[in-house]
Amino acid sequence: MKSSERSAPRIITLTTDFGTKDSFVAEMKGVILSINPQAVIVDVTHEVRPHAIDEGAFVLASAVRYFPKGTIHIAVVDPGVGSCRRGILVKAGDHFFVGPDNGIFSLVLSKSDDFRAFHITNEKFVFDLKSPTFQGRDVFAPVAACFSKGLPCEEFGKEISDLVLFEAPKPEVSGDTISGRVIFIDRFGNVITNMTPECLVGFEGRGTVTVNNVCAEKAECYAMSAEDRLSFLFNSSGNLELFVKSKSAADMYGIRRGDPVVVRIDKG
Amino acid sequence: MKSSERSAPRIITLTTDFGTKDSFVAEMKGVILSINPQAVIVDVTHEVRPHAIDEGAFVLASAVRYFPKGTIHIAVVDPGVGSCRRGILVKAGDHFFVGPDNGIFSLVLSKSDDFRAFHITNEKFVFDLKSPTFQGRDVFAPVAACFSKGLPCEEFGKEISDLVLFEAPKPEVSGDTISGRVIFIDRFGNVITNMTPECLVGFEGRGTVTVNNVCAEKAECYAMSAEDRLSFLFNSSGNLELFVKSKSAADMYGIRRGDPVVVRIDKG
Amino acid sequence: MKSSERSAPRIITLTTDFGTKDSFVAEMKGVILSINPQAVIVDVTHEVRPHAIDEGAFVLASAVRYFPKGTIHIAVVDPGVGSCRRGILVKAGDHFFVGPDNGIFSLVLSKSDDFRAFHITNEKFVFDLKSPTFQGRDVFAPVAACFSKGLPCEEFGKEISDLVLFEAPKPEVSGDTISGRVIFIDRFGNVITNMTPECLVGFEGRGTVTVNNVCAEKAECYAMSAEDRLSFLFNSSGNLELFVKSKSAADMYGIRRGDPVVVRIDKG
Repeated sequence: MKSSERSAPRIITLTTDFGTKDSFVAEMKGVILSINPQAVIVDVTHEVRPHAIDEGAFVLASAVRYFPKGTIHIAVVDPGVGSCRRGILVKAGDHFFVGPDNGIFSLVLSKSDDFRAFHITNEKFVFDLKSPTFQGRDVFAPVAACFSKGLPCEEFGKEISDLVLFEAPKPEVSGDTISGRVIFIDRFGNVITNMTPECLVGFEGRGTVTVNNVCAEKAECYAMSAEDRLSFLFNSSGNLELFVKSKSAADMYGIRRGDPVVVRIDKG
Repeated sequence: MKSSERSAPRIITLTTDFGTKDSFVAEMKGVILSINPQAVIVDVTHEVRPHAIDEGAFVLASAVRYFPKGTIHIAVVDPGVGSCRRGILVKAGDHFFVGPDNGIFSLVLSKSDDFRAFHITNEKFVFDLKSPTFQGRDVFAPVAACFSKGLPCEEFGKEISDLVLFEAPKPEVSGDTISGRVIFIDRFGNVITNMTPECLVGFEGRGTVTVNNVCAEKAECYAMSAEDRLSFLFNSSGNLELFVKSKSAADMYGIRRGDPVVVRIDKG
Repeated sequence: MKSSERSAPRIITLTTDFGTKDSFVAEMKGVILSINPQAVIVDVTHEVRPHAIDEGAFVLASAVRYFPKGTIHIAVVDPGVGSCRRGILVKAGDHFFVGPDNGIFSLVLSKSDDFRAFHITNEKFVFDLKSPTFQGRDVFAPVAACFSKGLPCEEFGKEISDLVLFEAPKPEVSGDTISGRVIFIDRFGNVITNMTPECLVGFEGRGTVTVNNVCAEKAECYAMSAEDRLSFLFNSSGNLELFVKSKSAADMYGIRRGDPVVVRIDKG
């Protein structure tokens, strides 16, 4: 590490389902800045649907790659708070993750093959290890802030190898037909699927993309698509995305998270 | 004050009913950073219901204790802006408060017994002392920013002792029955009451908690409660809270702010 | 520039229609902080209605004047992303602007008579100059971050003089009658018009202000207006604003963006 890097402020990101009308997020930020006044806190989102671990996992995984090395990511979508589910600190590549061991880091860790996870048990770095309702403030914020000051992962608890990880549903291939799912609807009503170019080898836009019995048309970008027409492209995260120019595809075609999306490759 | 503390950036928090779709909040932040580029600004919330001073007071009071000593808290829920209501700077313990003298600091000051309040009258530190519609930008932001650079409170105006303070409604005790109120509904639809362990001596979970004729069940944490069942616990702020596991108790039982909540202590 | 100014962190503001539930904004912030860890990022808003360039232009123009000299403003309301519309870097007075060349900077530039604009073409400072769906992250964030480190505008591309600029609709004067428009409804339901004191010479509150056949009453401030009565004042941006005390004028009188507002000056 060069000296210029050492003196750079440490970034701590927050991904939660806490919303912004309550004081939850501010309480976490107050705790972090009390412990490390030099921390730079960045909100990823606090608008994850309440208790939707998979949605939080998706948004976090989309954002992580754009943050600099050394960034610490706190994620708290935590319906199991106060139960026996563990709190964890994970090192994956050059990024660090702090939150509940409930699968929230599944997607981001699925892209890493050498991560190390630690069970947070050292009471020295938390306010209340058994906080019944708000470990975001009482465990994860203080752990991330203490860690941002340069402590080694091992200080926080023992290394573990049995993390709770869910596998993201993968598209199924059957001959020239690939069946995937809608995994997210974004603010614009654009429909994000779990299909990427890797699982659509040979597709390259030749063939059909169908959702809810509607066939989508290939487009190069939003602006260069037909008006009022379901279109598709590969979006900025590399996912197959369905959209309607300047409108909400989800509203217009009643598309919801979980809906099946089918690609038929035309090899003719 | 040690030199390491002196050089730490000063934190200024913001609690308003301005929302985030307009430029109000950004205008305040621009003013603050123009005066003190080293200020670290933290949003508590901008989603207080328009003009709901008591709600702003509640959210602010919940957050304050987690911020470090020396933090300056601006709160602007200000239906009386432009009238003769005063602007104030308050020192309470190691925290400072800037905003309208309309009761917004009532809850946080009720926990302090040695606060000092100053009527903001020095035109030197404001853009427009009589700004008719936006003193958040024209008075409170510049005062907080100037104050964050190290001026004494006395510079901003005379000390006053007749602040507008409302008293939070307290639970009423009648024999083994304690009657309180719903004071807040959080993002999850959890129902926060004004009842704390101090006013429920002898309760310890033995007895009944009733709201809108529904009896709630004791739970240790959200996860360890029965499905679809109104439950209660003492939350992360120490308040008696009613909830339904992974659902909105407020929606499910039609509970609203102000509704009565009754605890009957079973001493049998 | 004094040395104290040189060492101050550079502020980068963000105005978008990305909302806060997706990872778009966080991706941009990650990119900026990866390039310039000293950047101070301030959200103006991410709640511009999807694709509403004029609304983004209005909110940005309202905020800019309160930020310090040297601030860099990124604005991304960009239905034409991926098409042949250009990306631009603009210097106007002591502020800088980065975003699509689609009119989003029209209002703020209409107040400047000596701006210089540059077409972003240097691939050295972007991730993907032809990014089909997310130039906020792939072009504008890296350009702003690189620029914040001290590069001259000329490094990013050639100077151009044919920016896309729309003219804000101006009030029409006919004798003693001035006809304007509603240009924005704020969070409180207050109704902002395009009429300023400059276009209402001789008015000074004597005469009538009418919208949707309802006549508004003059008020000095929100608090000193009649209950449940449409009132008007000149707001904190200098615009004629219609409101109802502690209520939403827009909801109460069904007022929408674009509705005509008529002022009749009483010179009697």
